[in-house]
Amino acid sequence: MFSDEYFMEIALSLAEEADAAGEIPVGAVVVCKNRIIGKGRNQTEQLTDVTAHAELMAITAATQSLGGKYLADCTLYVTLEPCVMCAGAIFWAQLGRLVIGADDPKRGYSRLQPSPLHPKTRLETGILADESRQLLTNFFGRLRT
Amino acid sequence: MFSDEYFMEIALSLAEEADAAGEIPVGAVVVCKNRIIGKGRNQTEQLTDVTAHAELMAITAATQSLGGKYLADCTLYVTLEPCVMCAGAIFWAQLGRLVIGADDPKRGYSRLQPSPLHPKTRLETGILADESRQLLTNFFGRLRT
Repeated sequence: MFSDEYFMEIALSLAEEADAAGEIPVGAVVVCKNRIIGKGRNQTEQLTDVTAHAELMAITAATQSLGGKYLADCTLYVTLEPCVMCAGAIFWAQLGRLVIGADDPKRGYSRLQPSPLHPKTRLETGILADESRQLLTNFFGRLRT
Repeated sequence: MFSDEYFMEIALSLAEEADAAGEIPVGAVVVCKNRIIGKGRNQTEQLTDVTAHAELMAITAATQSLGGKYLADCTLYVTLEPCVMCAGAIFWAQLGRLVIGADDPKRGYSRLQPSPLHPKTRLETGILADESRQLLTNFFGRLRT
């Protein structure tokens, strides 16, 4: 039951929530021992704050929930490849595992060398990537019309 | 009166405040038309939050103060070279100018290629670098004793 797809579906539902609020649809959850301990979705418009990305919100929520700064035993699920800022936060939190939906060739962290991720963070990509990309395509399509 | 040194002194006083609170001593201010519109200092321990770096706090405060997400007409003064996370935030906020105290060869953003900064962000380094480095050296020296 607790597959990567299961948790990515929850991240996708947060992305849909962002979409409904007029935000770029990205969602993230932090999972520890099959429990969600942090949720986030893009809120940059609502909070007038460029730092209010889904991953940062989820990491902050997770560390508050744990009462500790590090998330080495946790997995972060995010519907879109993190930007450089969020990859930096994922580094500092020492996430044990990072699971990504769609890639982001333009703004994603993976363009940068050396990798901004912590060497101990295991990486999985492409989980429900089509669903995530479709949400983003629809969002930007509506913006242009 | 409103020189780079003047505003960096204020960032340094915030770094000293962090130091007194047992935090790695880094401070930052955002300045717009010679007015400080955002202040921040490292609060990662106090808030149990790896994202609570001086720069992120200062940027969030500045955008709240302005009521807008972008800081193209502002300068961020920070006592230590920003990490990758903070450089990413500086990118998103489109800071017009970035003024750095000490460099950070180990964790600074400038190790990465291509540069995580926005191409429009003008850069100045080495302002009161010795004072900033001395604070950090003293802090880590006390940790080791």
